[in-house]
Amino acid sequence: MNIDSIMTEISTLGEAKIPTPVQKKSDGTEDISFVSDLSRVIIEVDGSRISQMLKKSQPLPSFELAGPRKHIFFDPSKLKCALVTCGGLCPGLNDIIRSIVLELHYGYGVSNIFGIRYGLQGFIASYGHNLIDLTCEFVVNIHDRGGTVLGSSRGPQDIDDIVDSLERMNTAASRITDKIADRGLKIGVVGVPKTIDNDIYMVSRSFGFDTAVDVATSAIVSASNEAEGYPNGIGLIKLMGRHSGFIAATAVLAQQDVNFVLIPEVDFDLEGPNGLLNALEKRLAERKHAVIVAAEGAGQKYFESEKNERDASGNIKLKDIGIYLKEAIITYFVGKCVDISIKYIDPSYMIRSLPANANDRVFCNFLGRNSVHAGMSGRTGMLIGHWNNQFVHVPMKLIAEKRKKVNPRGSLWRSALEATGQSSLKND
Amino acid sequence: MNIDSIMTEISTLGEAKIPTPVQKKSDGTEDISFVSDLSRVIIEVDGSRISQMLKKSQPLPSFELAGPRKHIFFDPSKLKCALVTCGGLCPGLNDIIRSIVLELHYGYGVSNIFGIRYGLQGFIASYGHNLIDLTCEFVVNIHDRGGTVLGSSRGPQDIDDIVDSLERMNTAASRITDKIADRGLKIGVVGVPKTIDNDIYMVSRSFGFDTAVDVATSAIVSASNEAEGYPNGIGLIKLMGRHSGFIAATAVLAQQDVNFVLIPEVDFDLEGPNGLLNALEKRLAERKHAVIVAAEGAGQKYFESEKNERDASGNIKLKDIGIYLKEAIITYFVGKCVDISIKYIDPSYMIRSLPANANDRVFCNFLGRNSVHAGMSGRTGMLIGHWNNQFVHVPMKLIAEKRKKVNPRGSLWRSALEATGQSSLKND
Amino acid sequence: MNIDSIMTEISTLGEAKIPTPVQKKSDGTEDISFVSDLSRVIIEVDGSRISQMLKKSQPLPSFELAGPRKHIFFDPSKLKCALVTCGGLCPGLNDIIRSIVLELHYGYGVSNIFGIRYGLQGFIASYGHNLIDLTCEFVVNIHDRGGTVLGSSRGPQDIDDIVDSLERMNTAASRITDKIADRGLKIGVVGVPKTIDNDIYMVSRSFGFDTAVDVATSAIVSASNEAEGYPNGIGLIKLMGRHSGFIAATAVLAQQDVNFVLIPEVDFDLEGPNGLLNALEKRLAERKHAVIVAAEGAGQKYFESEKNERDASGNIKLKDIGIYLKEAIITYFVGKCVDISIKYIDPSYMIRSLPANANDRVFCNFLGRNSVHAGMSGRTGMLIGHWNNQFVHVPMKLIAEKRKKVNPRGSLWRSALEATGQSSLKND
Amino acid sequence: MNIDSIMTEISTLGEAKIPTPVQKKSDGTEDISFVSDLSRVIIEVDGSRISQMLKKSQPLPSFELAGPRKHIFFDPSKLKCALVTCGGLCPGLNDIIRSIVLELHYGYGVSNIFGIRYGLQGFIASYGHNLIDLTCEFVVNIHDRGGTVLGSSRGPQDIDDIVDSLERMNTAASRITDKIADRGLKIGVVGVPKTIDNDIYMVSRSFGFDTAVDVATSAIVSASNEAEGYPNGIGLIKLMGRHSGFIAATAVLAQQDVNFVLIPEVDFDLEGPNGLLNALEKRLAERKHAVIVAAEGAGQKYFESEKNERDASGNIKLKDIGIYLKEAIITYFVGKCVDISIKYIDPSYMIRSLPANANDRVFCNFLGRNSVHAGMSGRTGMLIGHWNNQFVHVPMKLIAEKRKKVNPRGSLWRSALEATGQSSLKND
Repeated sequence: MNIDSIMTEISTLGEAKIPTPVQKKSDGTEDISFVSDLSRVIIEVDGSRISQMLKKSQPLPSFELAGPRKHIFFDPSKLKCALVTCGGLCPGLNDIIRSIVLELHYGYGVSNIFGIRYGLQGFIASYGHNLIDLTCEFVVNIHDRGGTVLGSSRGPQDIDDIVDSLERMNTAASRITDKIADRGLKIGVVGVPKTIDNDIYMVSRSFGFDTAVDVATSAIVSASNEAEGYPNGIGLIKLMGRHSGFIAATAVLAQQDVNFVLIPEVDFDLEGPNGLLNALEKRLAERKHAVIVAAEGAGQKYFESEKNERDASGNIKLKDIGIYLKEAIITYFVGKCVDISIKYIDPSYMIRSLPANANDRVFCNFLGRNSVHAGMSGRTGMLIGHWNNQFVHVPMKLIAEKRKKVNPRGSLWRSALEATGQSSLKND
Repeated sequence: MNIDSIMTEISTLGEAKIPTPVQKKSDGTEDISFVSDLSRVIIEVDGSRISQMLKKSQPLPSFELAGPRKHIFFDPSKLKCALVTCGGLCPGLNDIIRSIVLELHYGYGVSNIFGIRYGLQGFIASYGHNLIDLTCEFVVNIHDRGGTVLGSSRGPQDIDDIVDSLERMNTAASRITDKIADRGLKIGVVGVPKTIDNDIYMVSRSFGFDTAVDVATSAIVSASNEAEGYPNGIGLIKLMGRHSGFIAATAVLAQQDVNFVLIPEVDFDLEGPNGLLNALEKRLAERKHAVIVAAEGAGQKYFESEKNERDASGNIKLKDIGIYLKEAIITYFVGKCVDISIKYIDPSYMIRSLPANANDRVFCNFLGRNSVHAGMSGRTGMLIGHWNNQFVHVPMKLIAEKRKKVNPRGSLWRSALEATGQSSLKND
Repeated sequence: MNIDSIMTEISTLGEAKIPTPVQKKSDGTEDISFVSDLSRVIIEVDGSRISQMLKKSQPLPSFELAGPRKHIFFDPSKLKCALVTCGGLCPGLNDIIRSIVLELHYGYGVSNIFGIRYGLQGFIASYGHNLIDLTCEFVVNIHDRGGTVLGSSRGPQDIDDIVDSLERMNTAASRITDKIADRGLKIGVVGVPKTIDNDIYMVSRSFGFDTAVDVATSAIVSASNEAEGYPNGIGLIKLMGRHSGFIAATAVLAQQDVNFVLIPEVDFDLEGPNGLLNALEKRLAERKHAVIVAAEGAGQKYFESEKNERDASGNIKLKDIGIYLKEAIITYFVGKCVDISIKYIDPSYMIRSLPANANDRVFCNFLGRNSVHAGMSGRTGMLIGHWNNQFVHVPMKLIAEKRKKVNPRGSLWRSALEATGQSSLKND
Repeated sequence: MNIDSIMTEISTLGEAKIPTPVQKKSDGTEDISFVSDLSRVIIEVDGSRISQMLKKSQPLPSFELAGPRKHIFFDPSKLKCALVTCGGLCPGLNDIIRSIVLELHYGYGVSNIFGIRYGLQGFIASYGHNLIDLTCEFVVNIHDRGGTVLGSSRGPQDIDDIVDSLERMNTAASRITDKIADRGLKIGVVGVPKTIDNDIYMVSRSFGFDTAVDVATSAIVSASNEAEGYPNGIGLIKLMGRHSGFIAATAVLAQQDVNFVLIPEVDFDLEGPNGLLNALEKRLAERKHAVIVAAEGAGQKYFESEKNERDASGNIKLKDIGIYLKEAIITYFVGKCVDISIKYIDPSYMIRSLPANANDRVFCNFLGRNSVHAGMSGRTGMLIGHWNNQFVHVPMKLIAEKRKKVNPRGSLWRSALEATGQSSLKND
């Protein structure tokens, strides 16, 4: 992806017919600086890498800048918009729903806005979920509660069924549909990537992450107080992060009471001279208490042999690193005849269901409104991302099946190590 | 216990020698109204029960009012005080430690104040725990953190060892000790009853309870958001309360998003036409989501047969009503081929380790200072309680092995039922 | 007021026709213990005062216990209820509105519930305020925000106009109105006393007070940090309390960073050897910083001479003790050539407009529901109060024009003095 | 400033002698990736501006990347470090002090760390302020409170006095001092720029800003509840921002209950057809309530004529836009005979004195540690900034006397206008 290739992509977009006066002056003139379709944010900011590219005459890769466009692609009076939330809860979902509805209504005059209930299930008639009519009155206070007013669900649904459903919703807007069909696009799809884990490739920050870290610090304080409260007290917290340890590593910096932090990106051993259990024993001998934070995806190597174990009901057994660690620690110290007091805290459901904090509210407001601007301008197949402090359009293809990871040699992990004081927990 | 009998008890206390100028005026005169030893708070406030007692010429039972006495029993310059915290954490422990130390120091001029580490273990030399010197500087900010700066531990220790240890600490204060011995009392012991569950007999409120309810509401909000977020979503929260459901019933009033509340005092069935599972199924059919709060002591009848089950390590298996309910609900709906999404939240460790809220801080301040007043005036074998909005002296004998319970026909439980809308969950 | 006289009053109430099945068992039978009209809570709990009364054969004064009655006085299907909120904001107003509406609807089946807009103005047609139809849907989440959904206003309105308005609202319910008229009662009026200052006579606690203290502690922390942050730093906070210092004295216990607390009940001087300014100067010399909390009604003697001063618009000049103290302190230290850094914080509007905390939510729930029980049972001219940990009926006549005060020789003020360490600030 | 010129600057730094093993592996080998002195972050990320520069063969301007260097410039065992905090309070000051001390101690082995009391005053002997010995024990929990443990003060002090003081502190470290003197540098000075207003030129974010916005939202909620609570209710909040409106504009996005936001960067009129007063009147007529947020630097044109007014004590009269607006609004509606209820909230002191939230804690941790890395590597005359999501070295000269401003045509202001719905408040 480079400037030229994406510009080519942009040139395939039609000329819009309807101006978007986001704000009118009292004399009726427009007073808003639209974003030019040529505005781009370069991706790479490392001076030496840029020098290399320039020496090789490579173009500098960049993202399209998000924001309102002077020309829009859809007729607001006929447009039908559908919003859907999928997967796990994340602080800020209602803020994004709210800002999309308000921007569509007040910014563009769109009044047909539907909420799809319970994720992709809502598209499938057989589930019998009704649509929600998303009015401004409906959304005005929804950000005061966590979760999602639309509901969500996990798991895939038949894609043909979903497209059928979208078409049925659009039958009354045939002319628009025809126009879109002429251009080979059925319907515009703009995403706001949701993962509390903050592990979206090419997106520097995902919404809800800041709130998650904020609240995770409470769990660390609790674990620390429990640990200090008993002889050989151990506080063990499992935090979110299936594939990346951003929440764990950042929370450890925000609340510096942690002695060991375990993340998926950095291997560790339990046994052996450098292993966690030995290090923990030393720590207890010296300081009488210890606090451990584990991202849920840490230490998955310990579950490899269990892959096919199933419980009585036929479900695959949960591979929960928190419970695994708790039991391993108990067994170890029982074997050593050392009395310990271990307290295990899993705050995940309490974190992801909370309302967004102020920082995430502002962030979600920009994400929601920019997704409307992108959709109204005819963009499709893209996400609203955040890169170099700018909101940008990120092609969905670009980020598919890639993940952002904590760099084990970068400043976040280095600082996390400094904050915990932990050494490598890996035997050679 | 009645007015006369307790007055008799009071008359056995010696005449104190040392005045207690809690506050001096600028001219050096005292300006404080001491509490008279005759001040009492009657226990019964029900008009008709009082009428009956009076008709039968029964004395009205009462507690001694807490507060500073004009005469004190110990010489502050020679007194040694030891503070110990036992059992589970509870919001407010550090506030009480702090207020005791400040009152002893500034109110009475006591400077030998020791903290016993890790509960009763700290009295037993073989554990090797050092004492903490509790100065005003040490305690001034301790209430900003939860837990206990002294540490705690569970389990009994040999009582003779403890008394030996106390005697060793007191060797330098022989005259005082002699004086006490003359009266048949070795050492004064004043307690501040600690249970977050608020189930102390004859004590209307125990510290930390208010904070616990405060924070439990967050867990209910989370569970509610999780439940509403998914088709057939169920939020299940276990709250503290081994023998009584005060936290559960009160939290349900504070955050009225709960549909079923289960407490130890009110029996319920899982199976059968009136059972929880059936009621839950109806609720989901009507409203698509449900929130359940269970006190940890609820439904213990389901564990009676398991009494002697032990795990591989020889430990008695945990009888966790939260996990039991979660599995029973999953099994039930699997059997009915109904897809549900259940989220189980156990916030106990996150609640009990937090700092006290403002209300509990004020309460702890009074508890701590009144325990000092009681001890300095020579009281022993008593607790500082709260009754009819007064701080009172409650004899330890009175409350031993009794527990306060939620009255299933009282206003708290009636209001909890109104707030949840639940019917009886008991088959006839 | 004593047991007999109030029982006589009760006997004037008619026999109700309609049972109140607050909760039905699955078999249709009622399962609720109604409160007997004979249940009373004695007011005095001081043992010696009770002894004196009994010796003189005086009856023990008592309040009627609040709660649901077996017999009710109004036909729920025809009843019209109007709710109105008057005066300043207070945390918990929406909780009370909510619990009244839910109890009327679910507990008694009342469906005509109206909200009067903007206090007593809403009764006066000329203001043009519409009624609000208070449905369960409308109120279900209103407690998530502070303030009052009904709106409020200050100042009296013509009482005849108000009664006219109530009669117009009731024209459709003539039979009920007739019935009431027969008994000489036009309409039942039940109050929930509102004052964040907690100064209602014969009511041990008013709603919103706990939240107010909770939040006031934040202001104290801020003032303390500002004071410690600068050489001769002074943090000055004005807290609510026009006639009584409960919020100030309690907040000072909840956040013990305060050196001087000033309340209306305890006189103090600014000038002179014992005056505040001299004491403040000593404090700064010793510790370099100081924190002062003043209830808004403290030191009003300094405004007596200003009584008739008016500003340009003809309004009486505000007599703000906070600003007065700030200026007096600045002038004093300018005169002494001492550089100080004073920061004045007035958090009143930020406190009174917040949502209730968990404790107040529970309290408001009981107040609201008990006011419904009282009204439905035909009580009128009474308030729902809280006394000796029970909810009770307090006759309006009893409390009119009296106020609860902080006892300058009681335990609250004694503890506040201990917490601040301040001496008397009064010259002889 | 461009890559080349700054690289030249870097080449003037001496070769350091002492390796900095931030973390040792168990086998004693180093396991940390130091930051190369060649690592740079380009400043400009706008694709078209970069294209223009490249066409003109201009170098791309960049900042040096912050982080630990392999070679350090000072001998930790002899180094003396002094920390000082100046000006107004800001959330996060204690976090930065803490992280600097911990990094100096654990990362580099520095043990002579002094805190200068009360800002620049602490360098001047005549003030008599003592130094604070900043040990790890001293700083470990300081971030739990707001403010600054060092104290602060405003106003300049004699620079020669300050340097004299620094030299006296350094007499024992003569060799290092000599070495520095050889290079014409007496002492290294590294800054962490402090302004809650977030208006530092070339620094995308300053610490404390996130916390400030977080807490400002509470003030907006309060003002909104007060406004909605009364007929023609107006909530008026003054927020920090002397020269820029970042806090006001961002808070308005975080809590979208505001109808008018006023910032220094965007002129507005009070009078006239488009003026605030007229717009406010219309708003009240339509919706009965309004909320206004004003940055403290907004509308300063209204004070130009007052420049030289002084009060009785000779102080320049405060030009407080909040109070000015309040009075202008009251006067306007009195003139129109419209009853309003205006509530003015100034939360500044309550905001700036709070502890940092989790997000700012993490941010401060990086700022503090990177300032140590910069100082230890011999950098001087620079600030630790944040640019394009990287921590960078910003030369002090570069930012002096320039300020970051809200762009009236940029996305922040556009979004603030969308959130308030306000039109231009400027007459032509």
